[in-house]
Amino acid sequence: MKFNLWFTEYHNENISLSMRVKEVLYLEKSKYQEIAIIETYDFGRVLILDNTFQTTERDEFIYHELISHIPLFTHPNPKDVLVIGGGDGGTVREVVKHKKVERVDFVELDEKVIEACRKYLPNLSCEMDNEKVNIIIADGIKYVAETDKKYDVIIVDCPDPVGPAKGLFEKEFYKNVYKCLKDDGLMVQQSESPLYDLKLIENICKYLKESGFKIIMPYSYPMPSYPSGFWSFTLASKKYNPLDVDENKIREALKEIKTKYYDEEVHKAIFLSTPKYLKELVRNITKSL
Amino acid sequence: MKFNLWFTEYHNENISLSMRVKEVLYLEKSKYQEIAIIETYDFGRVLILDNTFQTTERDEFIYHELISHIPLFTHPNPKDVLVIGGGDGGTVREVVKHKKVERVDFVELDEKVIEACRKYLPNLSCEMDNEKVNIIIADGIKYVAETDKKYDVIIVDCPDPVGPAKGLFEKEFYKNVYKCLKDDGLMVQQSESPLYDLKLIENICKYLKESGFKIIMPYSYPMPSYPSGFWSFTLASKKYNPLDVDENKIREALKEIKTKYYDEEVHKAIFLSTPKYLKELVRNITKSL
Amino acid sequence: MKFNLWFTEYHNENISLSMRVKEVLYLEKSKYQEIAIIETYDFGRVLILDNTFQTTERDEFIYHELISHIPLFTHPNPKDVLVIGGGDGGTVREVVKHKKVERVDFVELDEKVIEACRKYLPNLSCEMDNEKVNIIIADGIKYVAETDKKYDVIIVDCPDPVGPAKGLFEKEFYKNVYKCLKDDGLMVQQSESPLYDLKLIENICKYLKESGFKIIMPYSYPMPSYPSGFWSFTLASKKYNPLDVDENKIREALKEIKTKYYDEEVHKAIFLSTPKYLKELVRNITKSL
Amino acid sequence: MKFNLWFTEYHNENISLSMRVKEVLYLEKSKYQEIAIIETYDFGRVLILDNTFQTTERDEFIYHELISHIPLFTHPNPKDVLVIGGGDGGTVREVVKHKKVERVDFVELDEKVIEACRKYLPNLSCEMDNEKVNIIIADGIKYVAETDKKYDVIIVDCPDPVGPAKGLFEKEFYKNVYKCLKDDGLMVQQSESPLYDLKLIENICKYLKESGFKIIMPYSYPMPSYPSGFWSFTLASKKYNPLDVDENKIREALKEIKTKYYDEEVHKAIFLSTPKYLKELVRNITKSL
Repeated sequence: MKFNLWFTEYHNENISLSMRVKEVLYLEKSKYQEIAIIETYDFGRVLILDNTFQTTERDEFIYHELISHIPLFTHPNPKDVLVIGGGDGGTVREVVKHKKVERVDFVELDEKVIEACRKYLPNLSCEMDNEKVNIIIADGIKYVAETDKKYDVIIVDCPDPVGPAKGLFEKEFYKNVYKCLKDDGLMVQQSESPLYDLKLIENICKYLKESGFKIIMPYSYPMPSYPSGFWSFTLASKKYNPLDVDENKIREALKEIKTKYYDEEVHKAIFLSTPKYLKELVRNITKSL
Repeated sequence: MKFNLWFTEYHNENISLSMRVKEVLYLEKSKYQEIAIIETYDFGRVLILDNTFQTTERDEFIYHELISHIPLFTHPNPKDVLVIGGGDGGTVREVVKHKKVERVDFVELDEKVIEACRKYLPNLSCEMDNEKVNIIIADGIKYVAETDKKYDVIIVDCPDPVGPAKGLFEKEFYKNVYKCLKDDGLMVQQSESPLYDLKLIENICKYLKESGFKIIMPYSYPMPSYPSGFWSFTLASKKYNPLDVDENKIREALKEIKTKYYDEEVHKAIFLSTPKYLKELVRNITKSL
Repeated sequence: MKFNLWFTEYHNENISLSMRVKEVLYLEKSKYQEIAIIETYDFGRVLILDNTFQTTERDEFIYHELISHIPLFTHPNPKDVLVIGGGDGGTVREVVKHKKVERVDFVELDEKVIEACRKYLPNLSCEMDNEKVNIIIADGIKYVAETDKKYDVIIVDCPDPVGPAKGLFEKEFYKNVYKCLKDDGLMVQQSESPLYDLKLIENICKYLKESGFKIIMPYSYPMPSYPSGFWSFTLASKKYNPLDVDENKIREALKEIKTKYYDEEVHKAIFLSTPKYLKELVRNITKSL
Repeated sequence: MKFNLWFTEYHNENISLSMRVKEVLYLEKSKYQEIAIIETYDFGRVLILDNTFQTTERDEFIYHELISHIPLFTHPNPKDVLVIGGGDGGTVREVVKHKKVERVDFVELDEKVIEACRKYLPNLSCEMDNEKVNIIIADGIKYVAETDKKYDVIIVDCPDPVGPAKGLFEKEFYKNVYKCLKDDGLMVQQSESPLYDLKLIENICKYLKESGFKIIMPYSYPMPSYPSGFWSFTLASKKYNPLDVDENKIREALKEIKTKYYDEEVHKAIFLSTPKYLKELVRNITKSL
C-alpha cells in the first residue's frame, strides 16, 4: 500500500495532472513564489513553482537538450551565451557541454530556486559551479534592458507568462534581446503549448518579427510533465537558419556530447515535424509583417 | 461556477489526468468493456473505454492523421486497406480521403462502440457509411488469422495491450498481418508511449522483425490526452521506406486532402525527429536479429 | 470496473468530500443557482446546489426528522406551520405527518429546485401535493417581512449563508420571524457545523435573543453528507421548552408516525448530548444579553 | 497560493475525504502498517495508518472523551484499567485524569506508532510517561487471552476491522475481555459507523451478549474525520448501567477534569440520542439471545 499523497497541477479550471508524492523534500516561499521539490514515484524529483511543474528528473532531458543544442548547433561559433531563467540549472548543464562556449551569463531572478536545486536536484544543477558559468541574481527583463553586453546566443528558459514572468513575453523584452545579440546572434524562447496557447505563440512571433529578427521558427515536441504534454520553443535569428546546418558537423560534435533525445537528425526534423497548422500560423504572421 | 464533476484516468497507480465533465452523453457496458462518451470543457467530446481516454474531439486529428497518411503516402498505390480497431471511425475517415484507396475493410470487435460513436461523435464516425468502407464486427486477431485476403496497407488502431487487445501486441498476430499483406504491403501499429512503454516497443519491433518485415520504423509525436502526452506508431514494411517518398507528390495530393498536422515535411521529419534513444533502441533490435 | 466519474464538494480550500457518480440525472442553471441531481453509488440520489451537497437519499432522514419533529412535538398544538426553504420537500414530508398540523405554507425561492426534486427525488417531494401544503415561490426573507400571518411553528430549512441565503442568518430576519409567530410560537433554524461555524452559531443565538426569544437551544447531530459530518439546528421559542415535553405523549404519537432516527428519547437527549462547549457558548450569550 | 498537496482517504471505492497537507512530519512503514503524521490546514496534525485517518488534533477530543469518561464514570470505582490500542495516547491521557484510576495497562501492538506520536503528537501522547501508565507492546488479542489480571474497565480503542485488528471484532476476543473483567467490570469498544457498518455493530452486540455481558449499549456521536462523520462506541457491562449514574457525582468530579465535549448531561443523553434504528437493532439482538 502506497501513501495516498498527491500533488495536482491544474492546467486550467478544467484539466489537471496529478502525481503521487513519495516525499516532500523542500517547500518554501521566496520573495517571488512558492518553491517545492518533491520526490515522485514515476518522475523522480520534481521542481514545482507556484503549483506548476517546472522540471522533473524523468523528462527534463527532452526540454533541456532541445532548448540548448538547437540554437548552439545553429550558431557556428557560440562563444558568449546568455541564459535567462532556468534556475534548476538544466539548460546551463547542456550549454557548457559545447566546447566553443566560453562564457555563460546565467541570469535567474530567484536565488532560492538556485539554492534549492543545488541541494535537491544535483542532476540538473551540477554545472552551476562550472568556471564558464557566471550566475547573476537579477530580473532578466531588466538585465537585457540595461546591459551593454552582446551575446552570440540568448536562451530564454522562462516560466509561464504569469506574474513576474509576464514581461518575458512582451515586445519590449524581445527588442532588448535583439539589442543584446551580436549581428549574427540568435535566441530561443520557451513558448508554451501549441495546443493551448496558440494566440500566445502568434504574439511571440509577431513581436520577434517587429523586433527585427529575420528568421522566426517555432519547434514543437512532447513534454510529458507540461500542460497538454505538447510544448514548443521559438527560435529567432538575425542570420543563421537551423535548416542550413551541416548534419555531419553535428554528428561529429555529438561524439563528445552525450544526448538522449537530440541528434543530428532531430536538429532539422524537429522544425519540419512541427504541425502544419503551427508552421502556417507563423508563416502567415511573419509574411504579413 | 462550473459543476464540479470530473473524470480521471489513472495512467498507473502514481499518475492521473482529470478533465471536468460538462455532460455524460453515453455510458454503457458492452460485452467487452465499459463505454462512455462525455462532453468536456476543453477537449470537446471524449470517448472513454474502461476508464481510458480513447479519443477526444480536440486532439484526435494528431492521432488519426499520423496513423493514416504516413502509411498511405508511403505506399505508392494503396488500393486495399485493412483497419483493425478504431471503432470511433477517425482512422477510416482519414483513409477514405485517399483517392487511390478502393476498399477499406474495417474490423472492429465491439459493435456498441461503433453505435455510440455514430451517434455522439459524428466528426469522427462521419465516413463509416462511405461506400468504400466495409464494416466487419469481429476480433481482429482472429480475422487476420483466418482471412485469405491480401492488403496493401494494414492499420492497427488498437487500444492498450490489456484484456482482449493483448493479442494485438504478440508475435502470432504480426505473423498473420505479414501474411495478409501483399508482397509490397506495409502496416502501422499503435505502439504506446515512448516514455512509459519502451519495453513494449522493443518487443513489437522484435516481433515485427521476426515476422519478416524488412523495414521497421517507430515514429513518435505529442498526444495530449494519452498517458505522458507522448505517443508512438510503428511502421513495418515489406518494401517501401517512408523516407524515400517524393515530397512533391505528397504536396500535390494534399491540395485535395485537408490536414491540420500532417504535411509533406512532417511525413519524413516525424521519423527523424523521433528521439535518439528510441531510434537507437530499434536499430539495435533490428540489427541484432 | 466502475466509471471513474466523481463529484467533489470543497468544504473550504483545504478539505473536500468526493462521491463517485453513477449518473447525472439533472443539471441546470436557474436564476439563482446551479442545480444538479446525481445518482451515486452509496448515497443514492443527491441534490447539489452550487456544488454543495443539499440532501442525499441515504442520510436525509436524519436532517428532516430532526428539523421537523423536535419543534412540532415541542409545541402542544402546531396548527399553522411555515417552512422556509427546503425545496426538496423532505421537511414538508415530515411536517404533514403530524395530524395537528392543519396548514403548511412552504416558501421556496427557486421554482426550478421544486420541479427537479418533484421529478427526480420522489422520496422527498412526495408530499408537495398534500392538501395541507401551500407552495409559495418567494424569497423567505421578504415573505416574513411582509406577511401578516401568524404561525405556531416556523422551520427555516435554509442553505449555507452564502449569496441570497445570507439574509436568513441576519438579525432583521429573526425579528420578522418573531413577529410572524403567535405568542406561544417557536422556530427552528438550520445552523451549520458546530465544528466549523461556531462564530456563526454564536451570532444566530445573539440575534435570536435580541429578537425577543425566551428560550434558545441549539442541538447537534451527525450529518454524513454535510461538511464535517457534524451539524446543528437552533430552536428558539417564545414559551415552550423542548425539555418539558411529556415523553409518553411523543411515544404515543409515534405509533402513527414512522421515524428512523427520532424517538421520544432522542427528543430531549439531543439537546443534552450537544457538546459541552456549544451549550456553554450559547449559555454565555443568552445570559449576557 | 497554497501548495496543492492533498491526502485522500477512500472510505470505500465510492467515497473519499481529502485534506490539503501543509507538511509531512513522519512517514514510515512499521512491521504492521504504514504510519504517517501530517500537518493539515484545518485539522492540525493528523495520524494516518494505512491511508486511514486515525486521529486529528482538531476533533480527537470528541473521540477520546467519549471512549474514556463514559465507562469510567459508569463504574463507581475504576481502579484497574486496561486500554487496548490507541497508540496515539489520547485515550490514556483522558483515563489518567480520573483520580480513582490507580493503574492503566496500555497494550499497543505497534511500538513505532507510540514513538511517532510521542514525538509529533505531544498533545495526545503527553501522559504516556504518567506513573500510573504501564505500556505493554503486545497484541491485544493475545494479551487478553493469556493474562490472569482482572480489570475494572477495559477500553478497546481499536482501528478498523482490517488486517491484524480483525480479531478485535470476533467472539473469541470478547470472551477473553469478559474473563479479564472483575465481576462488576465493564468494557467499551470502538464500533465503527452506524451508517456504513450496521451489520458489524449487530455482530459485536451479538458476540458481547453471547460472551455473557448483561448490559450492551451502543452510543453514537459525530466524528468529523472518520468515514461518514458518524461514529459509535459500544459499552458492555456485567453490572453497572450508565443511565443509573448520579449526574451530580459527575458534575462534581468534572470540576477537576477539563472536558470540551463530555459533561454530566452528555453522559446519559448520548445513549438516548443514539438513533432509534440503532437502539432497536441492538434491543432486538440482545432480547433474542
